[in-house]
Amino acid sequence: MNTGILLISCPDQKGITATVTNFVFSHNGNILHADQHIDEQSNTFFMRLEWSLEGFSLSKEAIKEKFGTLAKKFQMQWDVYLTNDRPKTAVFVSKYLHCLYDLLYRYKSGQLPCVISLIISNHPDAAALAKEHKIKFIEMAILKENKIEQEKKQLEILKAEGIELVILARYHQILTEQFIRTYPNKIINIHHSFLPAFAGKNPYAQAFQKGVKIIGATSHYVTADLDQGPIIEQDTVRVSHRESIEQLKRKGEDLERIVLNRAVFWHLERKILVYNNKTVVFD
Amino acid sequence: MNTGILLISCPDQKGITATVTNFVFSHNGNILHADQHIDEQSNTFFMRLEWSLEGFSLSKEAIKEKFGTLAKKFQMQWDVYLTNDRPKTAVFVSKYLHCLYDLLYRYKSGQLPCVISLIISNHPDAAALAKEHKIKFIEMAILKENKIEQEKKQLEILKAEGIELVILARYHQILTEQFIRTYPNKIINIHHSFLPAFAGKNPYAQAFQKGVKIIGATSHYVTADLDQGPIIEQDTVRVSHRESIEQLKRKGEDLERIVLNRAVFWHLERKILVYNNKTVVFD
Amino acid sequence: MNTGILLISCPDQKGITATVTNFVFSHNGNILHADQHIDEQSNTFFMRLEWSLEGFSLSKEAIKEKFGTLAKKFQMQWDVYLTNDRPKTAVFVSKYLHCLYDLLYRYKSGQLPCVISLIISNHPDAAALAKEHKIKFIEMAILKENKIEQEKKQLEILKAEGIELVILARYHQILTEQFIRTYPNKIINIHHSFLPAFAGKNPYAQAFQKGVKIIGATSHYVTADLDQGPIIEQDTVRVSHRESIEQLKRKGEDLERIVLNRAVFWHLERKILVYNNKTVVFD
Amino acid sequence: MNTGILLISCPDQKGITATVTNFVFSHNGNILHADQHIDEQSNTFFMRLEWSLEGFSLSKEAIKEKFGTLAKKFQMQWDVYLTNDRPKTAVFVSKYLHCLYDLLYRYKSGQLPCVISLIISNHPDAAALAKEHKIKFIEMAILKENKIEQEKKQLEILKAEGIELVILARYHQILTEQFIRTYPNKIINIHHSFLPAFAGKNPYAQAFQKGVKIIGATSHYVTADLDQGPIIEQDTVRVSHRESIEQLKRKGEDLERIVLNRAVFWHLERKILVYNNKTVVFD
Repeated sequence: MNTGILLISCPDQKGITATVTNFVFSHNGNILHADQHIDEQSNTFFMRLEWSLEGFSLSKEAIKEKFGTLAKKFQMQWDVYLTNDRPKTAVFVSKYLHCLYDLLYRYKSGQLPCVISLIISNHPDAAALAKEHKIKFIEMAILKENKIEQEKKQLEILKAEGIELVILARYHQILTEQFIRTYPNKIINIHHSFLPAFAGKNPYAQAFQKGVKIIGATSHYVTADLDQGPIIEQDTVRVSHRESIEQLKRKGEDLERIVLNRAVFWHLERKILVYNNKTVVFD
Repeated sequence: MNTGILLISCPDQKGITATVTNFVFSHNGNILHADQHIDEQSNTFFMRLEWSLEGFSLSKEAIKEKFGTLAKKFQMQWDVYLTNDRPKTAVFVSKYLHCLYDLLYRYKSGQLPCVISLIISNHPDAAALAKEHKIKFIEMAILKENKIEQEKKQLEILKAEGIELVILARYHQILTEQFIRTYPNKIINIHHSFLPAFAGKNPYAQAFQKGVKIIGATSHYVTADLDQGPIIEQDTVRVSHRESIEQLKRKGEDLERIVLNRAVFWHLERKILVYNNKTVVFD
Repeated sequence: MNTGILLISCPDQKGITATVTNFVFSHNGNILHADQHIDEQSNTFFMRLEWSLEGFSLSKEAIKEKFGTLAKKFQMQWDVYLTNDRPKTAVFVSKYLHCLYDLLYRYKSGQLPCVISLIISNHPDAAALAKEHKIKFIEMAILKENKIEQEKKQLEILKAEGIELVILARYHQILTEQFIRTYPNKIINIHHSFLPAFAGKNPYAQAFQKGVKIIGATSHYVTADLDQGPIIEQDTVRVSHRESIEQLKRKGEDLERIVLNRAVFWHLERKILVYNNKTVVFD
Repeated sequence: MNTGILLISCPDQKGITATVTNFVFSHNGNILHADQHIDEQSNTFFMRLEWSLEGFSLSKEAIKEKFGTLAKKFQMQWDVYLTNDRPKTAVFVSKYLHCLYDLLYRYKSGQLPCVISLIISNHPDAAALAKEHKIKFIEMAILKENKIEQEKKQLEILKAEGIELVILARYHQILTEQFIRTYPNKIINIHHSFLPAFAGKNPYAQAFQKGVKIIGATSHYVTADLDQGPIIEQDTVRVSHRESIEQLKRKGEDLERIVLNRAVFWHLERKILVYNNKTVVFD
């Protein structure tokens, strides 16, 4: 079933919910989900509205035009999506392949509503996996000397392929600000710690050193601030003094796969709104 | 801040959300939360709407009348609540006092939006605790011979006190169907297992015997079917072969307190709708 | 590093720990792990002892002989394992491949200390996956008419291959008692519910119907009693009224993979002792 | 049942386990629990041994003498405890009383094997609770000007009362290094965040600001480094964008109580060994 989804944020005032739901109803849409949230600190209103497109009288273009007028009145930031438009997606990966492996399994099983059309890596390890899934694989070694040039090429490729979502599935390179600014809230990273604890390198070694009794994983949108972007999802698992760094890594891999997958899935279901370097994730 | 809350369920059709939100908006209400859910199996629509009563032009009686007309058109089952109306609550307890102790602490701290005006027990153990909190305590021993008679008295007392919510905080007596029918979806029980596993007596001993690696607690509305009412909340905790029945009990106590408290709190916040012997709990 | 592992259970009495640790020490073994547990109900003593074989003066055969004499005195049930002996393992699977897919990923990554030499299925779906990993795949359709005959063949194949561990990775056939008795505590199953809740067919549909707020998965040794064998590991995850049966299945898949993997891993690390239809799992 | 407990750490070498278990066995002790751990990074051996004192032939003094000789040979750091010796305990608290309230409930129920003989606070709020439980309450306001002097008095009081364990149950004062050095690994604090994230002041506000999806609590031994002492126990709970700072606080209170209680309980059961600013917690 094809559905329409509106994601809205604006200063709170009376009548927003009524106006928006009326808009959909007056064009013969059946509302399936209506979620809203008000951030009281900043007096901001957030809404996600999903309705059946069966019998709905407006095309996507017409929605943009008509709703746009209404949106201006409320100073809304907003987007509209149709479920059947599956975003083209690229996965960046380095040497650890467990997250990629997991994403591809879910993708092949029809669980991820996107089109994974590209895998980019600074190492050759993922080539066989990409081939097996018939996905274009591009190896681009990154050195200090060629980093900026290589990123430029990456951006050109992404543009040529029409990529709308970039997943960093354990990609061990820090993207430059310019790259990040090209895909605002469209680059999802998995960090192998419970952020803000253990940002940066070797989080499992840091966790072992500190003697924590629980480890975590965090998926977030990438911003120019390393490991500081808006958190989408986190999860944790208990560990004990018996576990070596190597064992923490293995246990953590299970978390990373699950947490990254949830974040990607919610992004694709258009359940996430970003504000104030935080996320609203409607469930 | 005083707010109004509408809880609604009805057969799904186009226009419900728009109609309901318009109703509130047209009487000058600012919607704070609008949650809805559609059960696709039964094609049932559920909604919880909360709005600020500041500047709202209708009294509770007027809401009942005006919204009633609208509700009929959609065949709604519905209720309206005002946050400032704090329901009178009775707690039933036997010999284990940890849940009562916890409820009273939260109550005293201002965390439970109700008025606990009565504690009833088939044992004397809770008398001191009740006294300390200046809550009326009634001890009523229950024997096979006097059970029906005692329950009749209990119902009279509840009626006289205007009780609207009954919490069974480890009350080890099975209520009769008649009692239960007097308070439909208004009796909350805590069962010390992860239902439907280990219903009935001695769930910790059952869990130990079975060798489960996780134990749980379940809070549910009481129905005539023992431990089979609509589940409101559950939680679990890991256990190991090292733990005796006694240790399971202690660990379980922490779960029981938290799970019961959440269920009671959500009930008081009017976040729960019941259908099909299940619950919708809006968050 | 090669290590020796002793798994012991016997009636409790003074001096067992001292005697066993002395045995290892007196033959120049450095003890790495010594775990013990006493079940007070049945007065049974359990022990797992692991020591470095570097410099240890006895061969496996000699351990069996010498320790056997000592073990008789204490009426021990016991086994000895060497870490370098990797048990030959067969995986049984039907149409859902997520658990198999996961096991093979971990196997390929060197995380599972066994040799997976055989995949048997009553459906053709896993053939490609098996081929990719260069593991022998045998498809054996199971019908009412040929079940006993097919199982006989399976047992012959397992024997011929020297299989020591059978993993049921979502194998949707009930094994006969005869099959099960051939591999006591050597068949590991994953059941997609929090046992003992929702044993038997369609546990996710049962969970949905019941309206539980948490779902689970259970890995256990297979006994003649369907879904009633000794539980090795369980885990749970929260669900809400919003989730359809289909969504429960997807969420549950993550649990199944993790729980089955843990059970298999602990079995291979020789951390599990079975008694009284329960398990001791040393960590 | 009275038991003896040995806590040992020393450089790893062959024969420690055999020697220690023999020591107990040769004096007619029945070993109930024997846990050991080897930290491979530092090649350190850790052991906790618990045995029944029924029929055991040595007094505590004799154990100290005889075992001391043996311990020297292995360069052990070690302690011996008898279960029946219940350590005298002081609780420090400020204005939030939920942790104190919880500790006292468990204490009164016989769940904490200690003697809580003193409550010290820089505020008067806990006075009634202390009185109710007939525990000596001392209010000592702490100002910049009198801090060192007041701490001196506190130390004198603790000494006079024979206090062996200090619990900081949300005590909002930073102890001086001198105080801390007087009770090494004998002061247990509860910090209301998942350390090392959000150390210092207002961790819930920090967590809200950061937009984390999970909050936590951490119990640790106090060292001169604020919130950096060896972690004993941690736990976490999910939160969402819907929850205000106030709601995080309430949810966190449940964690704090449970986490602090576990840490205190394990300390009293003598299950904790400290090394390298980390803990080994035997289960």
